[in-house]
Amino acid sequence: MSGDPLDLLMDEIGARARQAAKTLAVAPSAQKDAALRAAADSVSARQDLIVTANARDLAAAQSLTPALRDRLTLTGARLEAMAQALREIADLPDPIGHELARWQRPNGLDIARVAVPLGVIGIIYESRPNVTADAGGLCIKSGNAAILRGGSESFHSSHAIMDCLQAGLTAAGLPADCLQLVPTIDRAAVGKMLRMRDFIDVIVPRGGRGLIERVIAESRIPLFQHLDGVNHTYVDGAADLTMARQIVLNAKLRRPGVCGATETLLVDSKVKATHLAPLILDLLEAGCEVRGDDASQAVDPRVLPASEADWSTEYLDPVISVRMVEGLAGAISHIERYGSHHTDAIITEDRTQAELFLQSVDSAILMVNASTQFADGGEFGMGAEIGISTGRLHARGPVGVEQLTSFKYLVRGAGQVRP
Amino acid sequence: MSGDPLDLLMDEIGARARQAAKTLAVAPSAQKDAALRAAADSVSARQDLIVTANARDLAAAQSLTPALRDRLTLTGARLEAMAQALREIADLPDPIGHELARWQRPNGLDIARVAVPLGVIGIIYESRPNVTADAGGLCIKSGNAAILRGGSESFHSSHAIMDCLQAGLTAAGLPADCLQLVPTIDRAAVGKMLRMRDFIDVIVPRGGRGLIERVIAESRIPLFQHLDGVNHTYVDGAADLTMARQIVLNAKLRRPGVCGATETLLVDSKVKATHLAPLILDLLEAGCEVRGDDASQAVDPRVLPASEADWSTEYLDPVISVRMVEGLAGAISHIERYGSHHTDAIITEDRTQAELFLQSVDSAILMVNASTQFADGGEFGMGAEIGISTGRLHARGPVGVEQLTSFKYLVRGAGQVRP
Repeated sequence: MSGDPLDLLMDEIGARARQAAKTLAVAPSAQKDAALRAAADSVSARQDLIVTANARDLAAAQSLTPALRDRLTLTGARLEAMAQALREIADLPDPIGHELARWQRPNGLDIARVAVPLGVIGIIYESRPNVTADAGGLCIKSGNAAILRGGSESFHSSHAIMDCLQAGLTAAGLPADCLQLVPTIDRAAVGKMLRMRDFIDVIVPRGGRGLIERVIAESRIPLFQHLDGVNHTYVDGAADLTMARQIVLNAKLRRPGVCGATETLLVDSKVKATHLAPLILDLLEAGCEVRGDDASQAVDPRVLPASEADWSTEYLDPVISVRMVEGLAGAISHIERYGSHHTDAIITEDRTQAELFLQSVDSAILMVNASTQFADGGEFGMGAEIGISTGRLHARGPVGVEQLTSFKYLVRGAGQVRP
Repeated sequence: MSGDPLDLLMDEIGARARQAAKTLAVAPSAQKDAALRAAADSVSARQDLIVTANARDLAAAQSLTPALRDRLTLTGARLEAMAQALREIADLPDPIGHELARWQRPNGLDIARVAVPLGVIGIIYESRPNVTADAGGLCIKSGNAAILRGGSESFHSSHAIMDCLQAGLTAAGLPADCLQLVPTIDRAAVGKMLRMRDFIDVIVPRGGRGLIERVIAESRIPLFQHLDGVNHTYVDGAADLTMARQIVLNAKLRRPGVCGATETLLVDSKVKATHLAPLILDLLEAGCEVRGDDASQAVDPRVLPASEADWSTEYLDPVISVRMVEGLAGAISHIERYGSHHTDAIITEDRTQAELFLQSVDSAILMVNASTQFADGGEFGMGAEIGISTGRLHARGPVGVEQLTSFKYLVRGAGQVRP
């Protein structure tokens, strides 16, 4: 190994994580839950400290877009929600140790599949300090040690939150090393993490396309790929206009900065005369920038022309692209070409069209008559999530505690040999 | 893209696989099963042709070890077993399309998780022509297209088998391109496959450490890691000697060339006086080479000294390493240090020790009082397998048709927006 100080630092962190993971993997449920509750209490008790740290981050981050700034901002209410999220993780059933399946073979062998942790998880994220708590909490619950590398703009906020999590671990008698935050904003630390095959079992990248593409290109470790959410809401010819207007506004604007936000509105040409204008005017009135095709631009002079790049852009901002398509087939073909296979929705009263959409589109989450902003582990009833996987392996869609486990087979015999 | 002929060839194969995958993904169960049965009939009908092709491979492969030669050899009986395996895959339940789970949320959203294929699977394997049929059959059943790259020593055998599989696909009205064998023994084709992210969703490498390490180092595509099986059988102080002798002989020698074969025998020092000699003498009498520690060498002059490298070697031959350990803790610590986390067994009459072994050792498959040669999807009742995954993500242990699937979430609403 090299004598580079960063390499040595990261190897030390890795070795400590691997060691702590062994203890955490076999920790009783009650102990893990106690750590989560103590961490939540610590977040509640140290609100002022965390907000102060966050103010330091915000002061240094004047150039962020409003949506990214919103992601970075911590308030008392958001910290209470963070603490509450940790308590809710504690309340989830323990995903570790139970039998997922058990069966007997004709030769008497008894085979059980038992849930075990993945090991050590490396989490690389941008400046969303709440990821520190959510991801850290999910790892504790699922018996995985974690090495977290947050965005540099959230450095102080994430550290203040990590202090609370480690305080919780210590209070419950678990090693503080179960969760470690990389203590440097040196970007080379990310590259090093991506090569630490001996110490990290899976990488969870959380962020924009640039981060994800770097991780995909460099990682020597398997990853839960969370590509951007270029999500579509398709308003079908058989859509109820009132429902469509409510859903489209919500899907785009409830929180434009979340990955489940709709980025492109597709409207069936069959309802051009009735639906296109109200949908676009609603968005404009609500302060959303609209970039559209010719038909959309004809609705209102405020609609800007959409470029080819717009169709594959995740704005994470109050900006939407709008296009008229020829029915369901046109919508599917647009989504296949430009989408990121995250979350796509159809608004229609025609159940046959709806089922065809569900069957034909190959995205992690497909919705009928609902806002794409429901793409969220909590909204799915899975508890907090570490991300929405757009990969097809292991975890697809929301990655909650159950998705952070592996398993092993236990075979109990009575002397069987194989003929 | 480059104009290199190999690149062009592989891109063409990839594009055809991706196209065929779309058809196969939504093919009815009956059609996939008809393809499998027609392929099986074709293997049966063309036995002579396949054996002739195999003879050509065998004639050119004089330098292989006996175990590898055994893997390469096809006989009428083995081809019948291959055809039978395809029929058994046809008889398995279709893993695609059914609801894995479905639940309602308090807000009325109906959420279903539905099984879908992975897409296109790249299979890179050494000279085991039966992998062509097994892996190809499993991919058809699970709705995945596949690109297969077999070992060059099995080139003619694999092609003869692939012809049968494609005949089956065609007979059932499915695209022959659902399964394609890379038509060159140029090793650069493997490197190209490992970079075809647009065309291949998961790589399944099947082979020895050299192949796997190359794939791990080079692959830009997620893979089902099938590392070598450095498997242990630990004869505990509370082991029944008769049972231990039967199991150890079977675990090592039934078929030394399979990945579930035991490579290292660990014997508790508590039964050194009673168990060590009979276990070693059985192996020697059966023609197995024994490489042991000092205690083992003291048993018989035919026991060779084991080097440090022996403890982490997968022989795939009638060779075994033998070591005395200090009880269960000694066995676990040896397995943690040298094992490959594939399959490890304990022989003991002490149920507490057995359960401690099952809990403590972190391998894909753990066995009590049974031969490690049972490490096989068929023996697990899962049908044929594409490999035994030693990775922790997605699939661990035998990878059968259910492990070759992904899923998507279907959310059915009635106009819900997120508050």
